Amino acid sequence: MTTLRSTAAPWWSREDLGYVDGRLRLAGYDLAEQAETVDGPLFVYSAPRIEANLRRLRAALSKVGAPSRVYYAMKANRFAPLLRRLAASGLCGADICSPDELDHALACGFAASDISFTGTGVANRDLDRLLAHPDLTINCDSVGMIRRVGERAPGRTIGVRVNPDLGVGYGDNPRLTYAGRTVTKFGIYREQWGEALATARAYGLQVRSLHFHVGCGYLDAQLAAWDAAVGAALAFLDAVPEVTTVNVGGGLGLPHRPGDAPLDLDRWSTILDRHFAGRGVSVAVEPGDYVVKDAGVLLLQVTDVELKRDVTFVSVDGGFNLAPEPAYYDLPCEPAACAPRSMDRATWRPVTIAGNINEALDVWAADHPMPPMREGDRIAFLNAGGYAASMSSHHCMRGTFSERLLG
Amino acid sequence: MTTLRSTAAPWWSREDLGYVDGRLRLAGYDLAEQAETVDGPLFVYSAPRIEANLRRLRAALSKVGAPSRVYYAMKANRFAPLLRRLAASGLCGADICSPDELDHALACGFAASDISFTGTGVANRDLDRLLAHPDLTINCDSVGMIRRVGERAPGRTIGVRVNPDLGVGYGDNPRLTYAGRTVTKFGIYREQWGEALATARAYGLQVRSLHFHVGCGYLDAQLAAWDAAVGAALAFLDAVPEVTTVNVGGGLGLPHRPGDAPLDLDRWSTILDRHFAGRGVSVAVEPGDYVVKDAGVLLLQVTDVELKRDVTFVSVDGGFNLAPEPAYYDLPCEPAACAPRSMDRATWRPVTIAGNINEALDVWAADHPMPPMREGDRIAFLNAGGYAASMSSHHCMRGTFSERLLG
Repeated sequence: MTTLRSTAAPWWSREDLGYVDGRLRLAGYDLAEQAETVDGPLFVYSAPRIEANLRRLRAALSKVGAPSRVYYAMKANRFAPLLRRLAASGLCGADICSPDELDHALACGFAASDISFTGTGVANRDLDRLLAHPDLTINCDSVGMIRRVGERAPGRTIGVRVNPDLGVGYGDNPRLTYAGRTVTKFGIYREQWGEALATARAYGLQVRSLHFHVGCGYLDAQLAAWDAAVGAALAFLDAVPEVTTVNVGGGLGLPHRPGDAPLDLDRWSTILDRHFAGRGVSVAVEPGDYVVKDAGVLLLQVTDVELKRDVTFVSVDGGFNLAPEPAYYDLPCEPAACAPRSMDRATWRPVTIAGNINEALDVWAADHPMPPMREGDRIAFLNAGGYAASMSSHHCMRGTFSERLLG
Repeated sequence: MTTLRSTAAPWWSREDLGYVDGRLRLAGYDLAEQAETVDGPLFVYSAPRIEANLRRLRAALSKVGAPSRVYYAMKANRFAPLLRRLAASGLCGADICSPDELDHALACGFAASDISFTGTGVANRDLDRLLAHPDLTINCDSVGMIRRVGERAPGRTIGVRVNPDLGVGYGDNPRLTYAGRTVTKFGIYREQWGEALATARAYGLQVRSLHFHVGCGYLDAQLAAWDAAVGAALAFLDAVPEVTTVNVGGGLGLPHRPGDAPLDLDRWSTILDRHFAGRGVSVAVEPGDYVVKDAGVLLLQVTDVELKRDVTFVSVDGGFNLAPEPAYYDLPCEPAACAPRSMDRATWRPVTIAGNINEALDVWAADHPMPPMREGDRIAFLNAGGYAASMSSHHCMRGTFSERLLG
């Protein structure tokens, strides 16, 4: 029997991320050194980790008895060097949800035929820009959008987003659940399915793909619910035998807390295989977080370390406006000292790490064990590769930061 | 006894905002006409309303038996024409919380002597920029910041932010409470007050102002708690007789829901008078929302109106990334049709109004009575003058909008 030593590796350590000789490294890069090269907040992203995430996903998909492809959901992270790298890799296409994302994806090297649009609240001015690209896959989210596409491009090939009325999300968080429980804005429900198809037929639109997305951040605990949602979504297929691709959305989760285990991709692909093998359609997936989130960290610098009443506060030079998920979605970005003064956890003490925005909720972590910290120290906030920079705001005019692709 | 007619004015109507001949007007402008002049989301702000809010606040302050001044918290809305108008009006100074806000305020015409800085997580690079302006009021938020100011500018005049350990906020929402309950990152607690003053003395710093801010959006129901917080904060004064100004922060709220009554400024100024009359210090206030929030609306256009399962969804061409408070803070932006097809409330039906961001929480209002709506109609979202555009993000690359100052 082994005893957990107080210098054991943290729960989030992996081959390319962890402490080497007491310094935090990502993809072989010393993160404190990276931080020192810029003045202010810095996001770094590991290109090798992103590609490894994609390859792992593709390997799992290869076990499904149907052709498959991956569209990276670029709303998770649209840093241009990262997108260019992905476009050049050929490992994935791009999932987009706005015309500006389309232009950006094209500018970064994705071909329109490798891009899939799935948006909501799509305006006519959006449609005009999207329909200028005949090879773009356009998934329609409403009956009205089907009609408006038909009015502008009769006979075009389209996809339709459906809503299976079942949803899943990280920790069963309702903020991250896109179908089920309450009625959501996304896609066509079974009650309107006949009207949707009749509208498509009225304009000669060819429904070639079916899309659904049932939630964000699902892990093993949500896989049974996800399985049921896939089954419910595929029931829409019966009425459209001409469909060639089913896009099962994104939402594949990753660990955010010590107790979280990585998603079991074998179980995931077994579920897909059971639903898709021999069905004569290919399967598409559009992960965002799963590709980029654990490949990125946000590097901030400590401005003050001191007691406030009876709590030790570690203040840093960046706030929740740079990475909104911890404050708004209860999805923490675990803080890790870049160059701890001690690796012996017995010397670590709980602190509250707070950002530089004048809002009470701008707290990175509360009661979190950290080594002794001083002004000027660097802290890496993990899982900041997705839905961080891309959702950042200039609140308090504190939205300036740098980004770098490593490797 | 009168009967409420089904055509009675909505609860948020006021002299300068409401329906005239069935069309929604703000400051004399027809909002549907305003919306038609741009392609995409448009914020409009009423300059007369902003000035009226400031004059009402100044009138209340004039009843306090102490000199007073107002610093507008520009993080609420930093639209340059609005700031230039305020600077030229002479009605207020500017409250800022970052060096970029300082530069922006100066560029819009505020003198450094009319600007008050109160930030948190202040980095040394921030201090270097702030200290370049000797006339700027700098409120220190931590003992470390006092020391770091002292190291750079010994003998300077400073302010200190204190934490009275009591807080208030709209609807007693913990997300909007800045002191009390749990220990917050803001200011110096009583336990560290001696150390803070000793640090200031060690560098010859002259403590001339005291600052506190205990919460956001308080209304009459929170005034008793606010009264207690003011009293607790003023207890810090005993140790610093050299203080000449006490800044009581911002946080003055305004109605967000039908049941909310406007803040009773008479009660508010009576509380201030009781605490400040004859005390020999002047009082400063730094409102943000109170000045601008109800002066602005966000104008969006309907993209689709249709049933999803059994709920009528009205989709619009802008999402919560343009105005995050409804989704993230439970502070609604009430939707109002700009040109209702019927003013007879008997014809209105509950709908869900959803934005164009691919997130489940991007819903403007659920189960909200609206007149019959069609594609292309315009909806004004009220109370979008503060903490909307200034907190907006480019999430999904849907962050493009226009702004206009009316009047």
